Amino acid sequence: MTSRNRVRTSSNSLDPNEDPVSGLERVMSNSNLEHVARQRRRLEEELLFSRQLDDVGRTDSHEALSARYESLNYEISENRLYRDAEKKPSHQLTLWRISRNRWFVCFLIGVFTGLVAAFIDIMVHYSKDIKFNWILKYLLSKCGEEQRGTTAGCMWTVMIAWIGYNCVLVTIAAILVIYVAPIAGGSGIPQIKCYLNGIAIPEVVRLKTLVSKAVGVACSVGGGLCAGKEGPMIHSGAAVGAGISQGKSYSLGIDFGLFREFRNDREKRDFVSAGAAAGVAAAFGAPIGGVLFSLEEGASFWNQALTWRMFFSAMISSFTVNWILSWFNGRSGWLSWTGLANFGVFENKDYNIWEIPLFLLIGIIGGCLGALFNYLNTKLTEFRKKYVSSKLGRLFECLLVAAVSGFLAFLTIFAIDDCQPIGANPTATSTQINQMWCKKGEYSAVASLFFQNPEESVKSMFHSPINSFGVTTLVIFGIEYFLLTLWTFGISVPSGVFIPAILTGAAWGRLFGIFVERLFPSVTGIDPGKYALAGAAAQLGGVVRMTISLTAIIMEATKDITFGLPIMLVLMVTKWVGDMFNEGLYDAHIDLAEVPILGWNPPKMSRNILADRVMRKDVVALERRERVSRIVEILRSTLHHGFPVVDRIEESPYESLPDYGRLKGYILRSQLFKLLENRIFEEEGASNSALPNDFYECQDDDDQMKSVAELGLTNFDESCFLDIEPYMHPHPHRVPLNTSLPFIFRLFRGLGLRYLFVVNDDNHLRGVITRKDVARFRERRRNREYHVDELYISES
Amino acid sequence: MTSRNRVRTSSNSLDPNEDPVSGLERVMSNSNLEHVARQRRRLEEELLFSRQLDDVGRTDSHEALSARYESLNYEISENRLYRDAEKKPSHQLTLWRISRNRWFVCFLIGVFTGLVAAFIDIMVHYSKDIKFNWILKYLLSKCGEEQRGTTAGCMWTVMIAWIGYNCVLVTIAAILVIYVAPIAGGSGIPQIKCYLNGIAIPEVVRLKTLVSKAVGVACSVGGGLCAGKEGPMIHSGAAVGAGISQGKSYSLGIDFGLFREFRNDREKRDFVSAGAAAGVAAAFGAPIGGVLFSLEEGASFWNQALTWRMFFSAMISSFTVNWILSWFNGRSGWLSWTGLANFGVFENKDYNIWEIPLFLLIGIIGGCLGALFNYLNTKLTEFRKKYVSSKLGRLFECLLVAAVSGFLAFLTIFAIDDCQPIGANPTATSTQINQMWCKKGEYSAVASLFFQNPEESVKSMFHSPINSFGVTTLVIFGIEYFLLTLWTFGISVPSGVFIPAILTGAAWGRLFGIFVERLFPSVTGIDPGKYALAGAAAQLGGVVRMTISLTAIIMEATKDITFGLPIMLVLMVTKWVGDMFNEGLYDAHIDLAEVPILGWNPPKMSRNILADRVMRKDVVALERRERVSRIVEILRSTLHHGFPVVDRIEESPYESLPDYGRLKGYILRSQLFKLLENRIFEEEGASNSALPNDFYECQDDDDQMKSVAELGLTNFDESCFLDIEPYMHPHPHRVPLNTSLPFIFRLFRGLGLRYLFVVNDDNHLRGVITRKDVARFRERRRNREYHVDELYISES
Repeated sequence: MTSRNRVRTSSNSLDPNEDPVSGLERVMSNSNLEHVARQRRRLEEELLFSRQLDDVGRTDSHEALSARYESLNYEISENRLYRDAEKKPSHQLTLWRISRNRWFVCFLIGVFTGLVAAFIDIMVHYSKDIKFNWILKYLLSKCGEEQRGTTAGCMWTVMIAWIGYNCVLVTIAAILVIYVAPIAGGSGIPQIKCYLNGIAIPEVVRLKTLVSKAVGVACSVGGGLCAGKEGPMIHSGAAVGAGISQGKSYSLGIDFGLFREFRNDREKRDFVSAGAAAGVAAAFGAPIGGVLFSLEEGASFWNQALTWRMFFSAMISSFTVNWILSWFNGRSGWLSWTGLANFGVFENKDYNIWEIPLFLLIGIIGGCLGALFNYLNTKLTEFRKKYVSSKLGRLFECLLVAAVSGFLAFLTIFAIDDCQPIGANPTATSTQINQMWCKKGEYSAVASLFFQNPEESVKSMFHSPINSFGVTTLVIFGIEYFLLTLWTFGISVPSGVFIPAILTGAAWGRLFGIFVERLFPSVTGIDPGKYALAGAAAQLGGVVRMTISLTAIIMEATKDITFGLPIMLVLMVTKWVGDMFNEGLYDAHIDLAEVPILGWNPPKMSRNILADRVMRKDVVALERRERVSRIVEILRSTLHHGFPVVDRIEESPYESLPDYGRLKGYILRSQLFKLLENRIFEEEGASNSALPNDFYECQDDDDQMKSVAELGLTNFDESCFLDIEPYMHPHPHRVPLNTSLPFIFRLFRGLGLRYLFVVNDDNHLRGVITRKDVARFRERRRNREYHVDELYISES
Repeated sequence: MTSRNRVRTSSNSLDPNEDPVSGLERVMSNSNLEHVARQRRRLEEELLFSRQLDDVGRTDSHEALSARYESLNYEISENRLYRDAEKKPSHQLTLWRISRNRWFVCFLIGVFTGLVAAFIDIMVHYSKDIKFNWILKYLLSKCGEEQRGTTAGCMWTVMIAWIGYNCVLVTIAAILVIYVAPIAGGSGIPQIKCYLNGIAIPEVVRLKTLVSKAVGVACSVGGGLCAGKEGPMIHSGAAVGAGISQGKSYSLGIDFGLFREFRNDREKRDFVSAGAAAGVAAAFGAPIGGVLFSLEEGASFWNQALTWRMFFSAMISSFTVNWILSWFNGRSGWLSWTGLANFGVFENKDYNIWEIPLFLLIGIIGGCLGALFNYLNTKLTEFRKKYVSSKLGRLFECLLVAAVSGFLAFLTIFAIDDCQPIGANPTATSTQINQMWCKKGEYSAVASLFFQNPEESVKSMFHSPINSFGVTTLVIFGIEYFLLTLWTFGISVPSGVFIPAILTGAAWGRLFGIFVERLFPSVTGIDPGKYALAGAAAQLGGVVRMTISLTAIIMEATKDITFGLPIMLVLMVTKWVGDMFNEGLYDAHIDLAEVPILGWNPPKMSRNILADRVMRKDVVALERRERVSRIVEILRSTLHHGFPVVDRIEESPYESLPDYGRLKGYILRSQLFKLLENRIFEEEGASNSALPNDFYECQDDDDQMKSVAELGLTNFDESCFLDIEPYMHPHPHRVPLNTSLPFIFRLFRGLGLRYLFVVNDDNHLRGVITRKDVARFRERRRNREYHVDELYISES
């Protein structure tokens, strides 16, 4: 309670002008401000006390929403200029240009996302090539000349070289994340999910983030971590989408002046969703899966035209990757290489109805294992947040993970004696054949799992004959991979969880298949690869809890549709089972980051929470004609990004909140800046100066954080008036005081609102509801009963 | 203009109580009504005159919206009872029950849709079996004993038997449609699209519609028409979804009393969308395509939970069909039979980058052919609407189509001499081998196209070797199929356009492939089947203009992902090209039916159309406490489905519209009925009687069209008062008078509104906007410029 109170109060100190003041004269001295703050604190305390009496649950102290995250500005400010623009004959041309440029930008997004994906893939290829074919082969060949048993010392050399190489690469990745772009750490999917949900995560789609992510993920995957490149690919795609559509880069400070019409949050978000779809398409060769991913994770309003453009980007991106990789792999022109993660084609595609219960069982196992993974990873992340927060500490942890990963691999190869005759597995490639300690004519199956790309290992799991891997190998490999992935996801390198989860699941799924084969020796045609696929789907589904998009992605990555039904069944059961225990990994990380994300449905049991409870009563309102000095004061002293415009703010004693008068519209902070910047002032009687043509498009977040001082307003300027009316959005969304939370929620979710104004029966402004105010009401289930918890909004 | 005026006036005569009257005393005599009507006409004329001055285009007289179609009631009426219900402890149980039942109903929808699909497939199978293997084989074998050339007379017998059999089946289909359920005619996809868009198409999801559709489509496909069973399958699935979720049947008059919690439009629509997805899944073995179809055609708000349930239904349905058909085809338990339309697996899956321009060219051809098809079919449908409207005339047309289809098939076989040696096509099955006039050891390729299931013909087109069909065969077959499909789509039998369009496209696509092969004889590996697939996609895409869902459907139906990219490319180009000429076939038919459908985006160039122009000013408002007699009078004299509740209707002279006072809420017609039925009246001072528990769930359209007379209210009853306040929705959506059309559109589209209330600055009610008022503003493109046309609302 106190912390909530503290937060509210401290945020008040940021916004002194939310107070019952209006007009220049009423911009108060500090002492007055303090007085008001005291009054407000008292009000808040009363409010809190009264709230404790009602039926909404209090939450644990560690659950909060961070005030740091702002909403995207999805609504169009339909001010008078915007409407007038449509009347001009040139507007028809603008419409055509916008429509053409949208497709053009989507094309570019596809191409560049494909290029980034290909770049990552080729980087990973070379880093692995150096490791496997140069260091490993060379050192092993030197060892191989001696006899097994006497080579222990020689093996130590190999191991140290191996671990050293890994550590170098991981250090690069970690430095990029820790010192250049902290947001580039991890998978990136939680961040993109939040962005698509409508939250402005700082720096998430900057160029420096893209570079750090792309180079970093190549290093962390090349460095032998249990990390996938697919999640980071999606993040990279999103960053490409934002960068290209905005035609400028903050990180470089360059403005190409392109695509100015897309410089608002609405358009930017659309292009980011196209970029994310392109990222998935590039990562898995799955354009449909990509579109579904963007929709499942982000979209609230299904817009056919946007979906179609997303699809286009995804297709182009898939195509670009295909083209480059088919060239890189020496089959130039043949577009058969799809995606970075290609799981190969199944030969034996039939399955029988009696296998369905087995798939269901795999789903249950996957749900439990996924839930366990998420639980442990969440705890680990909380621990890490508390105790490993220094930059050097985080770097050291990355190195430790790299070293332990390499060491464990060697240890396992030492420990397990799983030698298979060469030729037992006809699908094995030459890199997979490592003799290690095996006899001549045999190779070490364990080594073949550890000493190759994870994607190749997945393929081996899916397509190798039943005897290719021993039971011990699979058990040890599965457990090690599970634990290492657990540790790796969350350290300060770009690392995805897709491939590691798939590999873990493939290991235990294959194990499951082997047991099935031993249980029913009379049944022919049991292919452990099929169960490995089901296990991979189950493990991944259990961790990320994606549903329809994951099905599409797996189907597209295996280039096959026949196993669609079992995969869906597995994913469905997995999600049901997993959701009994906890939420998906990405959602858990979003909650840990205290992001005010809005779910798909309003919280249950919230019909009796009304608008006057949800809203913030301390509003900073403007009148339609304001003195410049008051506007400047407000901009200086508050961080609000939009302000309601009313017809008349009533004087009132300090004891209560003011009557804000009739709601007439609202104006964005960035628009006020633009007006001030262009000196659109009125002296007494004189009319406004001309505005730049693109004013109505100015809904960009760039201008929001500018300092008022930069404007260089003179005293004379400050004494002028500003006529806000032509520039404000004249009909913002409004609801009466008795509106229920589900109704408000659906407005926010369905329309992507940022502000919702609460009016009384006479249309007088009473309060403002922002996304955070809605997001702090969370549905919780305790003892099979639903409750609504109210999170507090924390400062950090 | 006059027709618009006429319509407005005549609709006024239906709603006399929309007039400036309130209270019992003011329910007017007829003479008064006429006076008001005259006044209104004058107002309307003035309004029209003023409108002619502004910039919105007038539309051609044949474009209109029918007043017949009502909106679904997607919004929840959050009245006091609804809120109180949540406070009861039993509500937690209700939540669980609802949540469980939703999944259960979706399971049932999947199973029953699968059963219906399997039923249709088996029916078609037997009807074809009788035709091909009994009649044809038997008669042909008799003919075969004689020599070629002398058999003409014998062939006539075959033809007459053939045509006679077809006509019998088609007659059954036509009678079912014409006399039992007219809405069951055609594909059903336009109707489902409208329903999912939020429009209550009468009888579209009734049991009798389902039966007529399922039996009818089996007959029309079995009867040799150029008709597919896929569209009707989707309609059947939707009807199954509605039927099961409502737990009752209007057609049979049975109420099972099941799933009462789902008896509102919101839930019903959700289940219909699940049913439609299940229908697609059953038809094409494409669960993902099904979900995408439901989303692309219907959903405005992407709800993850709903999508997931749709997916579940689709999966179960696909599974059920699989299971039954694998049993039916003698491979019980092996789930390899997917969907009714199974296009077989491609052997040669590679394609080269130089083939991309060829695919693009196919896309362009498909776009043009599709646009031509749509243009001709629209003209034909208009012609048919005017001149073939009698029941007998329609029946006769169906028979004519059946006869001509059969006759043409024989004529073609007579005319074309395309004999291929048996064995030239290793994929040919025994039914495909008809010797006809060919020499021994040869078979007629033409006959093999005409004398088999269309699905089998598609497979032949896709997978046969290059020489299986002669060029002439393909040309004639393509043209004939194009024309016959054109004629068939729109006659009074259930008939889809998917398979015919695919077959047409496969024919010209294969032709295209053959030409490519002749142009580049040096290049090996050109497979005309690949081009047949591209052509099929192009033709179908050109006709229906579906995008992402069609891609998924084709990919799932061919069980292959490799051709995903070219298919997408083809569909994309096709849509671009086709959209230059006209809209998709389904949309064209929706426009012909004058349904007030809302598109995906608000019309361009409509920012300056404001709420006071969009709204209807003649509102029938209620006060919060009304005398029963006035309510009865209003229910008797209007057809409105919802009424705004205001705090006080001001007396006003007849010259102008009244001041309706502050908007307090709104109440549905069905709720008023329920209140009257339960006699929830107040005598002076006495309190209300108890209400049935389920009142708050009562948002069902059942009660809307009941007659007031059925209630049997006494004079005493009518003198009582009804306190509406606890039962009304207390915070309906409202916008100020200066709201722009795009803003209003997004509210309707994003939230599924039925009513939007327009208030002035003091929150006084000024008008009502319904879906029809929004839908009548249409974006049109003339000379590369966008305009907004305003359709009139016609009476019929």
